[in-house]
Amino acid sequence: MLVKMLARLPGLGQKSAKRAILHLLQHKESELYPLLNHMKDTADKMVNCHSCGNLDMSQPCSICSSEKRDKSTICIVENVSDLWAMERTGSYSGVYHVIGGTLSALNGVTPDDLKIKELLDRVAKETVKEVIIALKATVDGQTTAHYLGDKLEPYNVELTRLAHGMPIGGELDYMDDGTITLALKSRRSL
Amino acid sequence: MLVKMLARLPGLGQKSAKRAILHLLQHKESELYPLLNHMKDTADKMVNCHSCGNLDMSQPCSICSSEKRDKSTICIVENVSDLWAMERTGSYSGVYHVIGGTLSALNGVTPDDLKIKELLDRVAKETVKEVIIALKATVDGQTTAHYLGDKLEPYNVELTRLAHGMPIGGELDYMDDGTITLALKSRRSL
Repeated sequence: MLVKMLARLPGLGQKSAKRAILHLLQHKESELYPLLNHMKDTADKMVNCHSCGNLDMSQPCSICSSEKRDKSTICIVENVSDLWAMERTGSYSGVYHVIGGTLSALNGVTPDDLKIKELLDRVAKETVKEVIIALKATVDGQTTAHYLGDKLEPYNVELTRLAHGMPIGGELDYMDDGTITLALKSRRSL
Repeated sequence: MLVKMLARLPGLGQKSAKRAILHLLQHKESELYPLLNHMKDTADKMVNCHSCGNLDMSQPCSICSSEKRDKSTICIVENVSDLWAMERTGSYSGVYHVIGGTLSALNGVTPDDLKIKELLDRVAKETVKEVIIALKATVDGQTTAHYLGDKLEPYNVELTRLAHGMPIGGELDYMDDGTITLALKSRRSL
């Protein structure tokens, strides 16, 4: 039962879950109890930011409450791990909005399942100049981007999206056809 | 000796080379001799196109001699496998120029090692409107692109490069920091 629960975590399978549990049970005092306490502690303290949806120990989160961040630029990401990926680069100084997924007819995700109303509320209340869509470059991501474009039209904000094309260090021979075609179509003057 | 020679091929190691040779020697009549004949045949017929550097059975190659291809657009690729990758997409209708590598101080590749003179000759002789640089997005690739830009400046051609950014289907969380930063910097209006 415990193995099954642990195996549900992303990146763990039945075997590695069993190994992890065996290790923990064999080192109860030094590993298991400290881990449990830490998990409980973190779970109690961590909250979703009411404004952007980021996971943090403060409400609003440290990004939303920071004076160094540019509140007039909102970057729309799919989930918290994408937000952390953007933060990792250190090259973005605006704030975020975690939308919680992409529209998908196949998986039955409708606009009501995403935090789109919350986004429109923010754009209406705060002085937002630019909304950057950083959703993944799939059909669902594009559909969501277009839907957001329609919804944001009345609000007089600039709507942009991350550039699509060849990744850094990417060799043509290893790229999929779609990426090459897109990179060719949206080529730029040097 | 034979194993060593075969192991030098890209994608083959000592072990797989040994397995391949054993298989061939055990099926001489059905596998080894037909393979040898085919290889000899193909090697005799295949030539590098004098114009673009493509590997083909005709001189000039089928792309350079095709009336359907737009001769006023030249796409610069690093090697023949990149050319084939572009062709695979079916979305490019111009001609190519295989430049043979990228400038690299580290590996001692100088402009004389690349087919740059041949490119300038083509641009001078033929009526070329656009040169598309499809080199990989590494430091060496960028250096080569800038060098080509300088060299091509007197010829009044439009110089473009493939778009850089997020590949199709790429998720933020799995992208390297450089690609995310670049995609953010060169974001586009929707």
